Amino acid sequence: MINVGIVGSTGYGGCELVRFLLTHPNVNIEWVSSRTYSDQEYSDVYKSYFTLLDQKCVDEDIEKYLDNVDVVFFATPQGVCAKMVNENVLKKVKVIDLSADYRIKDVETYESWYGIKHASPEFIQEAVYGLCEINREDVKNARLIANPGCYPTCSILSIYPLAKAGLIDMDTLIIDAKSGTSGAGRGAKVQNLYCEVNESIKAYGVASHRHTPEIEEQLGYASSSKVLLNFTPHLIPMNRGILITAYASLKKGVSEEDVKKAYDIYKDEYFVRVLKEGNVPEVRNVKCSNFVDVAYKVDPRTHRVIMMGAMDNLVKGAAGQAIQNMNIMFGLDEKTGLMLAPAVL
Amino acid sequence: MINVGIVGSTGYGGCELVRFLLTHPNVNIEWVSSRTYSDQEYSDVYKSYFTLLDQKCVDEDIEKYLDNVDVVFFATPQGVCAKMVNENVLKKVKVIDLSADYRIKDVETYESWYGIKHASPEFIQEAVYGLCEINREDVKNARLIANPGCYPTCSILSIYPLAKAGLIDMDTLIIDAKSGTSGAGRGAKVQNLYCEVNESIKAYGVASHRHTPEIEEQLGYASSSKVLLNFTPHLIPMNRGILITAYASLKKGVSEEDVKKAYDIYKDEYFVRVLKEGNVPEVRNVKCSNFVDVAYKVDPRTHRVIMMGAMDNLVKGAAGQAIQNMNIMFGLDEKTGLMLAPAVL
Amino acid sequence: MINVGIVGSTGYGGCELVRFLLTHPNVNIEWVSSRTYSDQEYSDVYKSYFTLLDQKCVDEDIEKYLDNVDVVFFATPQGVCAKMVNENVLKKVKVIDLSADYRIKDVETYESWYGIKHASPEFIQEAVYGLCEINREDVKNARLIANPGCYPTCSILSIYPLAKAGLIDMDTLIIDAKSGTSGAGRGAKVQNLYCEVNESIKAYGVASHRHTPEIEEQLGYASSSKVLLNFTPHLIPMNRGILITAYASLKKGVSEEDVKKAYDIYKDEYFVRVLKEGNVPEVRNVKCSNFVDVAYKVDPRTHRVIMMGAMDNLVKGAAGQAIQNMNIMFGLDEKTGLMLAPAVL
Amino acid sequence: MINVGIVGSTGYGGCELVRFLLTHPNVNIEWVSSRTYSDQEYSDVYKSYFTLLDQKCVDEDIEKYLDNVDVVFFATPQGVCAKMVNENVLKKVKVIDLSADYRIKDVETYESWYGIKHASPEFIQEAVYGLCEINREDVKNARLIANPGCYPTCSILSIYPLAKAGLIDMDTLIIDAKSGTSGAGRGAKVQNLYCEVNESIKAYGVASHRHTPEIEEQLGYASSSKVLLNFTPHLIPMNRGILITAYASLKKGVSEEDVKKAYDIYKDEYFVRVLKEGNVPEVRNVKCSNFVDVAYKVDPRTHRVIMMGAMDNLVKGAAGQAIQNMNIMFGLDEKTGLMLAPAVL
Repeated sequence: MINVGIVGSTGYGGCELVRFLLTHPNVNIEWVSSRTYSDQEYSDVYKSYFTLLDQKCVDEDIEKYLDNVDVVFFATPQGVCAKMVNENVLKKVKVIDLSADYRIKDVETYESWYGIKHASPEFIQEAVYGLCEINREDVKNARLIANPGCYPTCSILSIYPLAKAGLIDMDTLIIDAKSGTSGAGRGAKVQNLYCEVNESIKAYGVASHRHTPEIEEQLGYASSSKVLLNFTPHLIPMNRGILITAYASLKKGVSEEDVKKAYDIYKDEYFVRVLKEGNVPEVRNVKCSNFVDVAYKVDPRTHRVIMMGAMDNLVKGAAGQAIQNMNIMFGLDEKTGLMLAPAVL
Repeated sequence: MINVGIVGSTGYGGCELVRFLLTHPNVNIEWVSSRTYSDQEYSDVYKSYFTLLDQKCVDEDIEKYLDNVDVVFFATPQGVCAKMVNENVLKKVKVIDLSADYRIKDVETYESWYGIKHASPEFIQEAVYGLCEINREDVKNARLIANPGCYPTCSILSIYPLAKAGLIDMDTLIIDAKSGTSGAGRGAKVQNLYCEVNESIKAYGVASHRHTPEIEEQLGYASSSKVLLNFTPHLIPMNRGILITAYASLKKGVSEEDVKKAYDIYKDEYFVRVLKEGNVPEVRNVKCSNFVDVAYKVDPRTHRVIMMGAMDNLVKGAAGQAIQNMNIMFGLDEKTGLMLAPAVL
Repeated sequence: MINVGIVGSTGYGGCELVRFLLTHPNVNIEWVSSRTYSDQEYSDVYKSYFTLLDQKCVDEDIEKYLDNVDVVFFATPQGVCAKMVNENVLKKVKVIDLSADYRIKDVETYESWYGIKHASPEFIQEAVYGLCEINREDVKNARLIANPGCYPTCSILSIYPLAKAGLIDMDTLIIDAKSGTSGAGRGAKVQNLYCEVNESIKAYGVASHRHTPEIEEQLGYASSSKVLLNFTPHLIPMNRGILITAYASLKKGVSEEDVKKAYDIYKDEYFVRVLKEGNVPEVRNVKCSNFVDVAYKVDPRTHRVIMMGAMDNLVKGAAGQAIQNMNIMFGLDEKTGLMLAPAVL
Repeated sequence: MINVGIVGSTGYGGCELVRFLLTHPNVNIEWVSSRTYSDQEYSDVYKSYFTLLDQKCVDEDIEKYLDNVDVVFFATPQGVCAKMVNENVLKKVKVIDLSADYRIKDVETYESWYGIKHASPEFIQEAVYGLCEINREDVKNARLIANPGCYPTCSILSIYPLAKAGLIDMDTLIIDAKSGTSGAGRGAKVQNLYCEVNESIKAYGVASHRHTPEIEEQLGYASSSKVLLNFTPHLIPMNRGILITAYASLKKGVSEEDVKKAYDIYKDEYFVRVLKEGNVPEVRNVKCSNFVDVAYKVDPRTHRVIMMGAMDNLVKGAAGQAIQNMNIMFGLDEKTGLMLAPAVL
């Protein structure tokens, strides 16, 4: 059994981690910690877990709790994990960080977009960017995983085949993203009240969202070029899910057949489904599952390609991918505990 | 392995059966049948199952397909199962009927509320009403299960302890029920369009809903009396879930302590959770799971008790309970394949 | 022109008052006040009012602002209006209080259900309970209106005809109510976040909701008896609207025809629509309008009547009825500014 | 009084026309026609209109009904209006066509994108494209108005200032659009059922949506160039509203100040609100109103401008703009009957 601790367990990401880990055949949840709810029963915070996880949340002085666990998940706000990680921690446990702290290799870029000082830049280079389908080999031996952001996971996996194959003009790349409201977190803010979100839609973080440099960095690796793009997220009245619609000009002479072949890169991937021609990704088709559905459409009128991807932000975009990383790190079949079919309803 | 066939697989109930059966460790889905979509790939009907269940739907001449299966689920409209079941079928396979055909023991009551002639009344007595927590022993050896209706499951389980213990005046019983829209099925009707359901709520089937006699019959057994009650369902703008709020006068002298003790009847039941005092059932706390959450509140001002229950209509109210019945019939732990924690988001 | 001031203008009730008053042909909004947002532009609080109401919110020291207005609406939390009203205020302006402060004639009942001391009980007797259809004559000359609660308005108007005509046994009365989430207000609470309300339903305030004594008092007047009833509100994932489903036993010998005749009491009322036989109230049919739709169904099996009512909680349940009261007080046609047809979509 | 007839009155567009026309001070609804519901009471089709519009729908042989009306609105599927309009009709009444029949000047483009033969191409040149803010003068004397499509209205008004001022490279224009579900109409299709739309989002008509050539034509006039662009609509789980997010490269040397100045073109327009810097359009801020909110954001990193617009598809995108056109044609203040403030809740 893998003994697991979860820091920041009472946010929506933590809640979803618990949901999957409870039925993971190789996992025991040893402790859950919370700054806000320490010493309260987890099932009082989320009553859905009544009888399933009634243990009390511990505080966030997590070094006290490391001896009993093999891996610690951080589902914490930016900056928390970077403060808590040190050599002692990494010697005792594997760390999977669902926050952004170790995702961006250039510390200045991190500090400028996130507006905080990085507390442990010395571990940034060691950290593996845990986009499993792309960095699987590096994940295997990692001590510290930077679990990708929700938007970046969906964006990168949708665009990666064409970036990698050099079929699109990276200077023309535009990503228009749409996310369910769980992405905004569980903070008690007026703007996230039911009546403020329902029956509406808006863009936010226009030309300034923090996931922009993360996507740019990874697509830069894929295309071996410096990438600057526009990324615009929108808030959608639904609980879960992300859809991205990305646009780029095809390079001169690139055909639809070339594009199709590039997506064959996923032919052995279980969790990435390249849809049949004519189908488009829909959030409900991946809801509550670890799948990412991707599709593309070439427009001969404009010689652009439209790349689309749908994913559950809480699963493949957070908890599910974190568990997929854990499975890889501990030598399990990476699908273990993640085989749920999507809840289309 | 239990080989399974599903008749009427392309309705919402069938879709949910598939979702759970795909990850059930002892089950192989041998075939799915559909009147409307026969010869089409299942994953073209529900694209969420792409790569997971791509086989083609067979037609509904199901006697052709019985040799390869151990159990057949009927997720069909009223009357279909009754027409298809016969001694030959029951000799070959176990039948779990998610429709109402065998739920009501009195055939005249069935025919009058459902407005159709029963095609095989000779099997009504044999059929076991598959409310697992109450009829578990009978389910074990059944050939034919009448899987309970969604509203009845939630209503009966919420009220049963007090009816059984004789604490409430059954003549005063009123059930006010609220259901998500999946309960209305997948038929292409204007009244079920997004824009007609969203941002609204209405009662339907007032004093005439077909689940009324089913609830009355079962609560009659529990209370050893003839029960007539009011049952009013409402349509709620959400996909899944049922909440029932029931009202009854406590018999003279009955105390809150008596009520509390009566609910101890569920103390060994995994799927029925009697909430802690002060908590109320919420649909989100059971969503996508096989749990039923029940609670009660005694009002000393009126000497009434308010009984509440929440449940996922597609799981414990349909597919989940059907699988729970299957597990019991085949000697498995009844929780097998049904351990998913609720998806609170 | 009637010059209007609104205290507590930045809650949802205040926001809806502004929406209707902006297009009222006889009204000028002189000032809006806010404790939280004083000195901020109203259209910064609700950006929907950009270019329509850009004036700054004043503070809540409202005695400074009385000279320029004819009427003041209080859309404030319980207790605020009672503290601000005094003889000086009532000499200068008419007051329409959308809170509960003056609704309940018995001050002990008020203090016990609301848990606060009443600051100006000397005005309770003078205050007119502004349920226009029932107390129209008293409203005409009132200085101080206790604008009815949302649940009470819908409940009372649905039940009043039968209570008044003495056709139901008041001891058997049960009201099961369902409300959109705007009823929970604009406070930044976790429980009202989009993801906590969406795709769910729950009861709250079971056997303890503060609107209970208000309904009991008014139905007591109607039936000339002391009324104790059960009232259970539920939170529904929609912005606006209330549906109530009420149950009572018909007195011996009462026929469906008697019931039908009792509802003729509304035959000259514009805003109360008694639906045609077979139709049921739906929230969407009254949304954004001042209508209340009522209907009834007699169940011969149980000799009960089910009474149903639908209404927009923000309009007839708050701002609309407040304006209807204002119209009556100022001698205008009571429909003025309230003629909007429901926004069924 | 202007006597009005509405053809296709029972679709969602027709329903919204009725809602506004009922309270328009200068309008009398003389008749409503319907192919599907002829001879049924309008308030049986939409029960929200009970007591407000109980007259029976007439059939669609509309030439019989022209003598009593001054203007006829067509809220009909593509092709219907083109078949019904002829010189005789236009001599008797003004025609406002909410369908696409006369929007596109090049009949071949129309026939190729819509897949039908145009029944009366001889009137295409005469028809005025009724985008009021841009073609107001031509509307005044028109006999036949091509009321713009919903997506085109929002897209064109958001982009027009920069296209007109020549500040953007039109070859780089991409429009990513999001619409509420009423845009899909009231047809009884599985794909529009509540459970199929709720908790999901998807693109549709990718690189093939019929509104594409309409937008291209109008922006071509604005920019005096041939425009080819990408337009991708998405279906959002909400009833009403459209948000568009458009992207284009700024021409070399264009500054943010230039962009700002270009939007001054709307400074005298009541229904187009250019938001304050830092604010973004939200659907809820224009819901149920005739406003279009527009904003822009210049991204210095990519030298692109992001143009955003929000609008109610049923109002400014259909019924509201049609009435605005009617007001202009009949010499009324164009705001008459359209002054409702947005229903932010």
